[in-house]
Amino acid sequence: MPLRLDSRDGDFAAAFTALVDARREADADVSRDVTAILRRVRAEGDAALADYTARFDRHDLNVSGWAVTPAECRAALESIPTELRDALQLAAARITAYHEKQKPQDSDGVDGAGVRLGARWSAVDAAGLYVPGGRAAYPSSLLMNVIPAKVAGVSRIAMVTPTPGGEINPLVLAAAQIAGIEEIWRVGGAQAVAALAYGTDRIRPVDVITGPGNAWVAEAKRQLYGVVGIDMVAGPSEIVVVADAKNDPEWIAADLLSQSEHDPTSQSILFTDDAAFADAAAAAVERQIPRLSTGAVAAASWAVNGAIILVRDWDEAMPLVDRLAPEHLELAVDDPDALFAQVRHAGSVFLGRMTPEAVGDYVAGPNHVLPTGRRARFSSGLSVLDFMKRTSFLGLDQGAVNAIGPAAVALAKAEGLPAHAASVALRLQ
Amino acid sequence: MPLRLDSRDGDFAAAFTALVDARREADADVSRDVTAILRRVRAEGDAALADYTARFDRHDLNVSGWAVTPAECRAALESIPTELRDALQLAAARITAYHEKQKPQDSDGVDGAGVRLGARWSAVDAAGLYVPGGRAAYPSSLLMNVIPAKVAGVSRIAMVTPTPGGEINPLVLAAAQIAGIEEIWRVGGAQAVAALAYGTDRIRPVDVITGPGNAWVAEAKRQLYGVVGIDMVAGPSEIVVVADAKNDPEWIAADLLSQSEHDPTSQSILFTDDAAFADAAAAAVERQIPRLSTGAVAAASWAVNGAIILVRDWDEAMPLVDRLAPEHLELAVDDPDALFAQVRHAGSVFLGRMTPEAVGDYVAGPNHVLPTGRRARFSSGLSVLDFMKRTSFLGLDQGAVNAIGPAAVALAKAEGLPAHAASVALRLQ
Repeated sequence: MPLRLDSRDGDFAAAFTALVDARREADADVSRDVTAILRRVRAEGDAALADYTARFDRHDLNVSGWAVTPAECRAALESIPTELRDALQLAAARITAYHEKQKPQDSDGVDGAGVRLGARWSAVDAAGLYVPGGRAAYPSSLLMNVIPAKVAGVSRIAMVTPTPGGEINPLVLAAAQIAGIEEIWRVGGAQAVAALAYGTDRIRPVDVITGPGNAWVAEAKRQLYGVVGIDMVAGPSEIVVVADAKNDPEWIAADLLSQSEHDPTSQSILFTDDAAFADAAAAAVERQIPRLSTGAVAAASWAVNGAIILVRDWDEAMPLVDRLAPEHLELAVDDPDALFAQVRHAGSVFLGRMTPEAVGDYVAGPNHVLPTGRRARFSSGLSVLDFMKRTSFLGLDQGAVNAIGPAAVALAKAEGLPAHAASVALRLQ
Repeated sequence: MPLRLDSRDGDFAAAFTALVDARREADADVSRDVTAILRRVRAEGDAALADYTARFDRHDLNVSGWAVTPAECRAALESIPTELRDALQLAAARITAYHEKQKPQDSDGVDGAGVRLGARWSAVDAAGLYVPGGRAAYPSSLLMNVIPAKVAGVSRIAMVTPTPGGEINPLVLAAAQIAGIEEIWRVGGAQAVAALAYGTDRIRPVDVITGPGNAWVAEAKRQLYGVVGIDMVAGPSEIVVVADAKNDPEWIAADLLSQSEHDPTSQSILFTDDAAFADAAAAAVERQIPRLSTGAVAAASWAVNGAIILVRDWDEAMPLVDRLAPEHLELAVDDPDALFAQVRHAGSVFLGRMTPEAVGDYVAGPNHVLPTGRRARFSSGLSVLDFMKRTSFLGLDQGAVNAIGPAAVALAKAEGLPAHAASVALRLQ
């Protein structure tokens, strides 16, 4: 049974705080293992990759091949049902259209003191994409990671993915073909992340690494942050659904379960102002679970991390939602915009009763790589900006140096930096 | 003597690669010490802060006071020379004006399929600013860190700074007063970063921590990345100056020394197409060093990390500069825009002979917190965006669900996520 809270109860504040502070992330300390793997790949390069792949993925890269060929991707795309090919193509087109609007503007101008000031954005040279193998090999994640890099103008995208036993999901290859990925390496784990960051004889280094992975992959990215750029520290997925009694409890139950089915550590929370609706939604969840092929995972997640929170009204609910800073937030009410105006922290918001979160996972357009674990307080979903960087610039003439130089000289001297002061003072006239 | 390379020499390629790959960053492993400090502050809060402060900064917070009062900041601002007060105010005004232009645009619209799509930016609730004590307590850094947060709309800014022996630099307090900082804690080191991230009884937690610090502070930020947002992994400062023979060698020498004087690990590199100018600049550096109060540091940095690189022409130089991806890049040539067009990776660019880098450290407007150690390949200087986050949103009606929902259902089923599929399918009509 999920947690059930009522804001009218005396112990509500403490119980809600416990919910906010609950850690769902695994504390498995893989940091030493990962450090050792990174060091060895840096020192031994491809030989280390071949050895780790033989050990963890049980195939010999020198026999099965290091790379997936473009021909394999084309064949995979042709092999999948038309309906799926069309769906992937619709998704790619819509994700591209949404991300095109994220492209930043350059600036360049001269201010009142005669100082030319500006900023110029440019893409990174190369991006690395980690795609998990096995159950979590999602073609949708591949599109969500690659398309922002493509829109940013990244000229080289290198994908790595483990192929346990040599096997690879054809849907992932089909998505790679649609996204235009031409470089795919059959390596995974921390060793693949190390190869992307440091480079090997075969795999040239990249500048930014994104994409989901297991604890080893996540720790490798964390340790290599600074050597390369990374997308974010990701944790288990979560959803908050704010729903009134006018909703169909079956719909809301399905929405809650669409997070619960990801992983036992996922979290689904329903806020409602109607006790009867809370009961109906809870009953619908229990009815739907046995019908799901993912039912065991969904049941475990819902029982351990799920919650139903009964509130007096939305004015009481929204500050509570903000404390959770959820990755996904559905506002299934009459006037979702009024509630959205009160939201300060959320990764992505789904407005109204006809907007299930899952449509955003696939085809709506916004990115589904979003901050988890209350990180929407300070971070954003993956975007074109993650694959770009900004160079500021300025240009002075004699008049501009004379106008603002003396202040720089004064501050440099006060900070005890005489060469700073001299470099400006020499140019004053 | 600094390194001297000539692109005409047979071993140039290898020697330049060695320069690019040279690590200047200290490898001091403070990670275990820092982990222990973070754990203790998390567990013991203010008591741990008081103990560490007594041990490392040699004063008793319960006697000297935990906070710097607004009255102390006002008094500091009144106590400093008018020239410095004016310079700080000019700097604050210009930095504010530059950063105002970085404020991102929200978006909201309905596309051809009837899907409402948008993104909304908002400021983080609270930002923490680390200000070093002692020699590196720079009022200019305080302004560069706080002003983007203020422009972003951050409502609470908490500053921490060690006050060794109880002492604090009045210029820093004056800058805090100008920047409008009202919360200043007299704690420093990894323990101060931990307090900002986890919160204590006295210090409420923040969402983002920025500001320079020593190896312990940098490691604390690195370890807490994900618990809070951080600005960047910072390393020693560096400059590349591209200068032709029309420059005054004294000016260029001062520009090179303005980086060298920061720290023995700083790096200054001159690219020139004229051997006689290279000699003249080198001689000017040697002449200027003895005149600097920072001469010992500058001499050490210049001798160990400095370099003069003679190239045939700028077309040869610019790809080499890109490999260095310098924090600061001066283009002291006739047509700096032509060279700037060839630059792919640099933190900040200074156009023309009248634009010394140091003017950008203080009063020009762009941020002086910039990516170092070749990180301009993938990261940007500190900006308003570091204190904001983006919430994407979408809204569908029946027509929009019918238009794009079936593709989401197909993909969800193919990925083996039946609750995802059901949450969309239930709404199809």
